[in-house]
Amino acid sequence: MAVNFDTTPMTARTTLAAELLAEFLGTLVLILFGTGVVAMVQLFPSAHPGETINGGYTNITIGWGLAVTMGMYIAARVSGAHLNPAVTLALAVFRGFPWRKVVPYSLVQTAGAFVAAAIVYLNYLPAFHKVDPGLARTAGVFTTFPAFGEIPLAGFLDQLIGTALLLLMIFAITDERNMPPQSNLTPLMIGLVVVAIGMSFGAMHGYAINPARDFGPRLFTVVAGFRQNGITDGSRVWWIPIVAPLLGGVIGAAIYDFGVRPFLPSSK
Amino acid sequence: MAVNFDTTPMTARTTLAAELLAEFLGTLVLILFGTGVVAMVQLFPSAHPGETINGGYTNITIGWGLAVTMGMYIAARVSGAHLNPAVTLALAVFRGFPWRKVVPYSLVQTAGAFVAAAIVYLNYLPAFHKVDPGLARTAGVFTTFPAFGEIPLAGFLDQLIGTALLLLMIFAITDERNMPPQSNLTPLMIGLVVVAIGMSFGAMHGYAINPARDFGPRLFTVVAGFRQNGITDGSRVWWIPIVAPLLGGVIGAAIYDFGVRPFLPSSK
Amino acid sequence: MAVNFDTTPMTARTTLAAELLAEFLGTLVLILFGTGVVAMVQLFPSAHPGETINGGYTNITIGWGLAVTMGMYIAARVSGAHLNPAVTLALAVFRGFPWRKVVPYSLVQTAGAFVAAAIVYLNYLPAFHKVDPGLARTAGVFTTFPAFGEIPLAGFLDQLIGTALLLLMIFAITDERNMPPQSNLTPLMIGLVVVAIGMSFGAMHGYAINPARDFGPRLFTVVAGFRQNGITDGSRVWWIPIVAPLLGGVIGAAIYDFGVRPFLPSSK
Amino acid sequence: MAVNFDTTPMTARTTLAAELLAEFLGTLVLILFGTGVVAMVQLFPSAHPGETINGGYTNITIGWGLAVTMGMYIAARVSGAHLNPAVTLALAVFRGFPWRKVVPYSLVQTAGAFVAAAIVYLNYLPAFHKVDPGLARTAGVFTTFPAFGEIPLAGFLDQLIGTALLLLMIFAITDERNMPPQSNLTPLMIGLVVVAIGMSFGAMHGYAINPARDFGPRLFTVVAGFRQNGITDGSRVWWIPIVAPLLGGVIGAAIYDFGVRPFLPSSK
Repeated sequence: MAVNFDTTPMTARTTLAAELLAEFLGTLVLILFGTGVVAMVQLFPSAHPGETINGGYTNITIGWGLAVTMGMYIAARVSGAHLNPAVTLALAVFRGFPWRKVVPYSLVQTAGAFVAAAIVYLNYLPAFHKVDPGLARTAGVFTTFPAFGEIPLAGFLDQLIGTALLLLMIFAITDERNMPPQSNLTPLMIGLVVVAIGMSFGAMHGYAINPARDFGPRLFTVVAGFRQNGITDGSRVWWIPIVAPLLGGVIGAAIYDFGVRPFLPSSK
Repeated sequence: MAVNFDTTPMTARTTLAAELLAEFLGTLVLILFGTGVVAMVQLFPSAHPGETINGGYTNITIGWGLAVTMGMYIAARVSGAHLNPAVTLALAVFRGFPWRKVVPYSLVQTAGAFVAAAIVYLNYLPAFHKVDPGLARTAGVFTTFPAFGEIPLAGFLDQLIGTALLLLMIFAITDERNMPPQSNLTPLMIGLVVVAIGMSFGAMHGYAINPARDFGPRLFTVVAGFRQNGITDGSRVWWIPIVAPLLGGVIGAAIYDFGVRPFLPSSK
Repeated sequence: MAVNFDTTPMTARTTLAAELLAEFLGTLVLILFGTGVVAMVQLFPSAHPGETINGGYTNITIGWGLAVTMGMYIAARVSGAHLNPAVTLALAVFRGFPWRKVVPYSLVQTAGAFVAAAIVYLNYLPAFHKVDPGLARTAGVFTTFPAFGEIPLAGFLDQLIGTALLLLMIFAITDERNMPPQSNLTPLMIGLVVVAIGMSFGAMHGYAINPARDFGPRLFTVVAGFRQNGITDGSRVWWIPIVAPLLGGVIGAAIYDFGVRPFLPSSK
Repeated sequence: MAVNFDTTPMTARTTLAAELLAEFLGTLVLILFGTGVVAMVQLFPSAHPGETINGGYTNITIGWGLAVTMGMYIAARVSGAHLNPAVTLALAVFRGFPWRKVVPYSLVQTAGAFVAAAIVYLNYLPAFHKVDPGLARTAGVFTTFPAFGEIPLAGFLDQLIGTALLLLMIFAITDERNMPPQSNLTPLMIGLVVVAIGMSFGAMHGYAINPARDFGPRLFTVVAGFRQNGITDGSRVWWIPIVAPLLGGVIGAAIYDFGVRPFLPSSK
């Protein structure tokens, strides 16, 4: 999620290391809240069939949106709060974000997501032991899986569309010549974009829309011994929420830059 | 949804073609999110009777509101983000929006909604095949139907009231002499208007409150072969969410312009 | 809900008649959305036992909050958007609102609520006929009833507490020397106050917290022939959501004016 | 929740007594709304198994967030609206808040929470008598209990993480050199932080994240005769939501001050 890429340059004190630390902490916060809300809904048994547990999908979608908002308020000023390699890539392609930073940003984002998954696992350990002692059914707390695994293209398309919408909206909402939210409410509005994507494009592939959000925690599920993890379980699903978001993000950004941005009034 | 109709004129670069492209893209985004959230709730089976699926009506109402917010942030600066022929008509009647643009705006809004429905259908194709292989019961993902089909007047009245409220609120919220939200938060507030209409006037006719939102996707359901579509199924329901919103919108705008606007303090 | 009672005086054009029209329209909008959302939840049958219908209490509480927000955006600049005799009374007691306007304001607020109830009844008439043809069980769409009718004091206390919180928060949120929301977002924040009251103090007496909101629609239920209406049904419940809010509102306002306001920094 | 600790000094009129009164009233409002929403969900029986009562956990999480927002709008300008000893302690450690005020602030916060619990108990007394006449099962309306009581460390860790996130976010959101929300919307944003914590870290120990919020109402449950209260019932759970939040808050604040704050641009 990019906030300050159009603002004045940072002081010399803000080195790349500081930016990477901010991306690490911002993505850590994002994934703490994000995987936390899925743990809340999936790990606590219902007393009656059909009962909505801990807010159900309404809480999941609002919770992930707030997770993005919170991560952005942490990192906005130091690193621009990308928190997502698909955002970093699109900014490199269309907004002059330095290419040399793309891989470092993506790596620390993934590392932050990995560590957050470990903390959430530790926090909910008794619940995992109670509900899924064999770690056979609950990797979905951390990472995403397709609703129709036999049609990989379906998940790919869904992730492409979802991330295209994400970047299209980020580019619109942060464009000073369009109608950007002011009063430093951009993180709230980008959070609402993620709420919208979750509500409308959440079931076909769990709306990763972020390679770091998906792959960092997925690596953790492998390390922790979850059986169904998309890497060692033979399903090979792991690459879809990496490649599709990267591609979709560039497409969505391109739609904005070719379809809207050239036609904005030149002065604010 | 009209935002900038009172602001300074666009530069020459913003031609009608650019405005139409913005209305197309804005309505595309609106209908992607809007019909997407209905797909999420209607196409995924519940494990237990009575279980709320994917957030249920709470998510549908919040999701459609966010859909409007997102569409508006795309198109606000270029075209005014009407995204709705009922808005365009009311602005022509009461705010001097050029009459020659009313039909072009309405056509591209409808086209954007049609294309968005096609994309959502493609995205959820495996789910449609699983849940409704004969396409006999799920056209409601895309377009609206009456709760009491045997009383057409009921749906007509509901759509008239809902759209009157929509335009009444849009005129209030965007009136510089009243108390308009600032910090470029108008799209959020108009989105909340649509949340309110959905929560309070959503069940009698699916709260189309927008001829383009309803007819574009309805046309798509005919093309895609949905049986219950309101056009070729003998029900002839299609004209109600076109005529009632256009009429209701003008009524709501008139209530504002005759009941509130003349009595505002002349200076801010 | 009082917004502009501290701002510059209206121009001469804003006569009392205009103020009364604004209060009428603002309360009309408030009750259209407010009773509309209860109709949505109570009048549509569930397919399965336990199923949450049309968003359930989550939508009711959010819907009533948005109803307040929308009513306030209509009337804020002309009349101050009280929309509630308990607000009008508290402003007269503590903020110099002219006493001669208190009764006229309260009467048009009640009239607006009455007309709104009639419109909502007309809109949902087929649903009333289907679900409650004898009008014996659904007056709760329009007006409030106690959860423990045999203990009138319980409902009285609940309404007193709820309205005290309402006025305490309104006085805090609109106090220029405290920390009032800016960017013309006061109507949104007062709406959130009502969401909070509904979520936390909603079940003992239906959180009327507004004599006009309760008595206008209650009068309509008598006229329309609802049997359980709190006036002609022998329960005599009607006076509680009138007296308790008026008293509670003054108490809440007093708590603010004696407990917080004297200690605010004198300059902003 | 700290808002104005970086602003200009109060006038002499704002004495410590005024600050303590503001903290008392702000925490009173916080706990009125907060325990009120739990009462709404836990004290009203469902007609059908599995039915979501009064909004369920979605309302609980939104309601507690709004409770924080409302408490902060009361106390923000006079006392800084800490409303939480963990906030007060972290501000003393990292922001120069006077150490001599830490205990007085904490005591009045706890007293405000105690009185609020008493008011909510009185308000819902008929419901308590109906649902839990022996006061054996409903102390959870007021105070928190572990999901896995046999593993005290689990609740301790959860409360430490939750409060670390709370203070990390408060420090980020109120830092003038980062990207703080403006237009006096800080109370809304801190409320959303609490919504996020509740949605993502709410089930292991009821997300007290505030010693006063937990211990004040817990003392009330002892006085009122609730059997399961964490003090006299032999479980000795009471100290966990005191010690873990105090420690976690300092950790979260430290993460911000060492991981983000040194790298912010020096000028806004």
